[in-house]
Amino acid sequence: MTSTESVPSSAEIQPSRTSVLHGTRELRWETRDVPAPGPREVRVRVRRIGVCGSDVHYYTHGRIGPFVVEAPLVLGHEVMGVVEALGEGVGSLSVGDRVALEPGYPCRRCAYCKRGEYNLCPQMTFMATPPVNGALSEYVIWPDDFAFKLPDSISDDAGALLEPLAVGVWAARKGAVVPGDSVAVFGAGPIGCTTVQAAKAAGATTIIAVDLEDFRLDLARKVGATHTINARNEDVLAVIRELTRGDLPLSHAGVDVSFETAGSLPTTRMTLAAPRPGGRAVLVGLPPDPEVSLDIVSAASREVTLRGVFRYANCYPAAIGLVASGAVDLDALVTHRYAFDDTPEAFEFADREKKASMKVMIDVS
Amino acid sequence: MTSTESVPSSAEIQPSRTSVLHGTRELRWETRDVPAPGPREVRVRVRRIGVCGSDVHYYTHGRIGPFVVEAPLVLGHEVMGVVEALGEGVGSLSVGDRVALEPGYPCRRCAYCKRGEYNLCPQMTFMATPPVNGALSEYVIWPDDFAFKLPDSISDDAGALLEPLAVGVWAARKGAVVPGDSVAVFGAGPIGCTTVQAAKAAGATTIIAVDLEDFRLDLARKVGATHTINARNEDVLAVIRELTRGDLPLSHAGVDVSFETAGSLPTTRMTLAAPRPGGRAVLVGLPPDPEVSLDIVSAASREVTLRGVFRYANCYPAAIGLVASGAVDLDALVTHRYAFDDTPEAFEFADREKKASMKVMIDVS
Amino acid sequence: MTSTESVPSSAEIQPSRTSVLHGTRELRWETRDVPAPGPREVRVRVRRIGVCGSDVHYYTHGRIGPFVVEAPLVLGHEVMGVVEALGEGVGSLSVGDRVALEPGYPCRRCAYCKRGEYNLCPQMTFMATPPVNGALSEYVIWPDDFAFKLPDSISDDAGALLEPLAVGVWAARKGAVVPGDSVAVFGAGPIGCTTVQAAKAAGATTIIAVDLEDFRLDLARKVGATHTINARNEDVLAVIRELTRGDLPLSHAGVDVSFETAGSLPTTRMTLAAPRPGGRAVLVGLPPDPEVSLDIVSAASREVTLRGVFRYANCYPAAIGLVASGAVDLDALVTHRYAFDDTPEAFEFADREKKASMKVMIDVS
Amino acid sequence: MTSTESVPSSAEIQPSRTSVLHGTRELRWETRDVPAPGPREVRVRVRRIGVCGSDVHYYTHGRIGPFVVEAPLVLGHEVMGVVEALGEGVGSLSVGDRVALEPGYPCRRCAYCKRGEYNLCPQMTFMATPPVNGALSEYVIWPDDFAFKLPDSISDDAGALLEPLAVGVWAARKGAVVPGDSVAVFGAGPIGCTTVQAAKAAGATTIIAVDLEDFRLDLARKVGATHTINARNEDVLAVIRELTRGDLPLSHAGVDVSFETAGSLPTTRMTLAAPRPGGRAVLVGLPPDPEVSLDIVSAASREVTLRGVFRYANCYPAAIGLVASGAVDLDALVTHRYAFDDTPEAFEFADREKKASMKVMIDVS
Repeated sequence: MTSTESVPSSAEIQPSRTSVLHGTRELRWETRDVPAPGPREVRVRVRRIGVCGSDVHYYTHGRIGPFVVEAPLVLGHEVMGVVEALGEGVGSLSVGDRVALEPGYPCRRCAYCKRGEYNLCPQMTFMATPPVNGALSEYVIWPDDFAFKLPDSISDDAGALLEPLAVGVWAARKGAVVPGDSVAVFGAGPIGCTTVQAAKAAGATTIIAVDLEDFRLDLARKVGATHTINARNEDVLAVIRELTRGDLPLSHAGVDVSFETAGSLPTTRMTLAAPRPGGRAVLVGLPPDPEVSLDIVSAASREVTLRGVFRYANCYPAAIGLVASGAVDLDALVTHRYAFDDTPEAFEFADREKKASMKVMIDVS
Repeated sequence: MTSTESVPSSAEIQPSRTSVLHGTRELRWETRDVPAPGPREVRVRVRRIGVCGSDVHYYTHGRIGPFVVEAPLVLGHEVMGVVEALGEGVGSLSVGDRVALEPGYPCRRCAYCKRGEYNLCPQMTFMATPPVNGALSEYVIWPDDFAFKLPDSISDDAGALLEPLAVGVWAARKGAVVPGDSVAVFGAGPIGCTTVQAAKAAGATTIIAVDLEDFRLDLARKVGATHTINARNEDVLAVIRELTRGDLPLSHAGVDVSFETAGSLPTTRMTLAAPRPGGRAVLVGLPPDPEVSLDIVSAASREVTLRGVFRYANCYPAAIGLVASGAVDLDALVTHRYAFDDTPEAFEFADREKKASMKVMIDVS
Repeated sequence: MTSTESVPSSAEIQPSRTSVLHGTRELRWETRDVPAPGPREVRVRVRRIGVCGSDVHYYTHGRIGPFVVEAPLVLGHEVMGVVEALGEGVGSLSVGDRVALEPGYPCRRCAYCKRGEYNLCPQMTFMATPPVNGALSEYVIWPDDFAFKLPDSISDDAGALLEPLAVGVWAARKGAVVPGDSVAVFGAGPIGCTTVQAAKAAGATTIIAVDLEDFRLDLARKVGATHTINARNEDVLAVIRELTRGDLPLSHAGVDVSFETAGSLPTTRMTLAAPRPGGRAVLVGLPPDPEVSLDIVSAASREVTLRGVFRYANCYPAAIGLVASGAVDLDALVTHRYAFDDTPEAFEFADREKKASMKVMIDVS
Repeated sequence: MTSTESVPSSAEIQPSRTSVLHGTRELRWETRDVPAPGPREVRVRVRRIGVCGSDVHYYTHGRIGPFVVEAPLVLGHEVMGVVEALGEGVGSLSVGDRVALEPGYPCRRCAYCKRGEYNLCPQMTFMATPPVNGALSEYVIWPDDFAFKLPDSISDDAGALLEPLAVGVWAARKGAVVPGDSVAVFGAGPIGCTTVQAAKAAGATTIIAVDLEDFRLDLARKVGATHTINARNEDVLAVIRELTRGDLPLSHAGVDVSFETAGSLPTTRMTLAAPRPGGRAVLVGLPPDPEVSLDIVSAASREVTLRGVFRYANCYPAAIGLVASGAVDLDALVTHRYAFDDTPEAFEFADREKKASMKVMIDVS
């Protein structure tokens, strides 16, 4: 028996029910043909898709900065599923394996890829970023080395949420969080919470979450924040300095690392002001306008290091380890669930109830 | 009222009951005069002294490698106490503060000190290392910046055990442990256990402890090890490779970081063999003989980085943060306690019952 | 003979002719008493003082940002001289030694000092920064460990200019310049030129200097720039991208590291835009206004790391090595010289002829 | 005209005269068929092959450690040539381009490749390492992204010698050489000399070369060593300590970084002993026997970091920049040349005259 015979399903075209964005707030159902997996590819039967803020933004605005939806686009890049067919040469996965898909794969040949900075590859193929389709579909084809087998200890939901956790892990890595550090996380949405979790996993012992909504702050505290500040009620920077000053003068107080995850101008400014001299500020979110007025003089003369985050590289294995070991609880972030058939409602809800929800999960199984 | 009047005790000589090593296994009681603290010094009323393996080794052998006890020596360098008098210029501490003493202070002026590598300072003053006396005494004088105020959440015992935890934190830092790493810790004594704890705090998700005694392995698991190997019963390296191989060939399996804390030749050899290509091996303990026969060719051609550990620098603040936040439980390591009057018995016990004890604590209060 | 007798000069008060800033553009001559050096201090007979842009700014404006000249101030912090008297405990220097003074010394005890980040010490004593006096005087007292003995191969002028070179070395260190890197240096004044030199010493192979004055660009090329751009005539960023793109799309072109040394808003903006994705931008100079409008979104989404520079730490030994080995030529930067008596003229000239001069040196010998 | 028509040569089989090792000291001439380049591959007309010590070792011994020549093997992995035909999808190279070939390419998909550590990839294809053939042939096929276009300023010889320079660059990177560092290089053969050159390019200001042959030491000095020690005549470690002690006690003297490139036991031992406390030791060469008796206790208690080197990753672009900019002169290393027809004589000579030659170059054009 040849290997082709042993995996007959891989030779077939598979019809796949798919939710497609055709215009602002216009999701249509289509059935698309998913081909057999090519060499070193797998076909995955999708089970869970997490709804990300960027998905909702494409849904409501049709663009994110320079990325404009100009043709029908499939959303969804927080993906968990089951391997259903194997292409030629796939050795590390088997049919039936539960997998999380890292939603972008690079060219593998440019200077960035060779250095391990594949998130900066100029030819990245990244789900749900025009013109590349996402995974809100019954089936997807994906390279085997960006499909990670899940241990039984990780739930289907958590498998999909490895994606936002990968962002948090990358943020903590960029911030070089080490045991004993104090950190401030501005914004306590899904990315803020996974950043809290990743910072805690990296040993941060003072973790200050800042948001405008108590609902989110309560959840941030549940997953690891040691202090929360509702910016409506308190002088955020004053509280942070008081919490971190120790024996130092107030001028030298501040967190070791601050993280911006809210994507607003005020939080961007606070993120730059919050670190101690020599500390680090990490921009995970981005302010809505490209030009931002910042007190760069103060930050620079305090030798604060400012770093940006663009997706992540080499974070899925660590994220899987953290969830499997119990260090991070992703299931706690899922506040609402929708069946695949109710995908449009899920998007409407996620847009409308931003303040009262954390992660909306779509069950595609 | 002058500041001298406000802290009158600092001007007095304070008699201090002290346990002094006069020869092998010969501890004598003496009363020594402890002077008033000088500028930026504090006088501390000692409360707890942990018995360290090096103390026991001086007690039983009168030397450790090049360090020879040639005059009566006071042992003890795991120290917690209460500030009793302040020297001139002390601003960050008050009488009555509970403190842990970092047991060594450097010259503050050489190239090592300026670079922050003060543990390598050629003029280090380190407790219980000939000819510098330790703290097995009612009172000690110490620089204020190496006396760390303890929050209420840290017990007296844990305050003394910040010292071995600082070693573990330094080891994890040298090993550059990051979230998701796999580590192997050879030796599950007090330093092995604090290394397990520090590695876990830094995000290690697979933590393999190796020892010959189940008593120690059980404790290592209690404080964070995810796997334990009794080297009497198992092929250590084979088990480690199986636990860490993932999708890779066995030749490329191995932990991200290995730690030697047992101070034996076989564990030193395993520490070098355990990491994956590109991994790190950290020698916290040292083999008894200086010359060691190692398979350096294999380690080097796998690009394993080998690092030594000599005490620590800048680890007390992180260690305090880890214990205060609950990330590390030092109290779990205390298996036996002795009153100050029973110090000789404590040393005899620690020597005799190495396999059945973890940390022996002396209560000096 | 006691040690006091052997260095009798150290016990005396030494009158010292001094140039003192009493108000904007008002330098007065005074004779000040310089005391005997205390423990671990030396008295230095000053020989050379380089005039720095910050000296000139205090001279013309009476302030630099938050630092205001509120009392008579001695300027000058680029200092070379000869050891004339030794305080108690000085072991590494002898009377007659030629030395460069690192112009700031820290508290030696705070968390920043212990970590080796002494430039961020809250209690830094830094010359010519109100209220601390500088060295435009015949004699100064200074801690022995911040006085560096000069080999014969380093000229008196070069000894004074180790200070701006230390800034360049620190900038290159913050930018993590490694062999083969491409760098852009915005501003080709003294700090721009020492940054060019330090980047070249660290292995940069493409070094692009940008300025508005050909005089400065010519000198930058002489000391190591491989390309120069006069921003009056060329589209700076377009040229940089063309020089650095290699095989990559223009969107992924850019230098590995960019340095701002001009202290202007346009160059600050270009510094942020010049690096490739994943590159680094170092702010050595600061824009005149604290609030700066920057395209932070573009920089962050390209994962550019932005770092500030505040003075330097642990750079004098490296700077001395680079000059002594011939890797860096500081003498090439001295374009004008004045006798000590002509100090006021030196300041007027340095202010007036900024575009036609590089480094103005005052000979105090 | 289609693109297929424009590169007709790529569709043909190209006979290629090849030197093949059939047994110890037995090189035979064969004509082998070189196929058309596949997708993203190029066919290169070889011009220069440098003879490496490992080539000579296979020639004289038929093996290097675990790598055994069990079938006829083509040697040669220091390769420069001209692109003659392009496979499908090659965009960055053109027919006629002069190129250096990085002689190994990885799987591009494993965890090592994704992290940028491709030299540790378990599926590396590396020239002249059994069973992979090298380039002692008229033609070779190679992936386009491991063929680096050479600027005119790099000679054909230097193009081939980028390979040993890449080893030196990697060694300097592993040793984290920074401006002002002192280094010792044990062994002054080709790899020792490129390590000297790479260390100098990275800013080392004290560069001590150690060898047994004055011929080699003279050449090392010519390419950058500031000091040379003939180990036959001097106490190597004593000289190193004297050269590096500065103000420190001898116990704390030593180089910042030491490099072993000689592959002998005595130099391996000295490499471990030469660094200052906190310094680094890099094993580029390996001792002939796997088990080595080392004073690991002393090295570890001085916190020396020991790192191995296995080939290199991401070094060709830097190496090209260093040679093109004039920072490194590779032509100086070529001491002897042979025509392709005289390849067997070249190997005999390289084996016999190791002490009186540096790099033997074969001209294949």
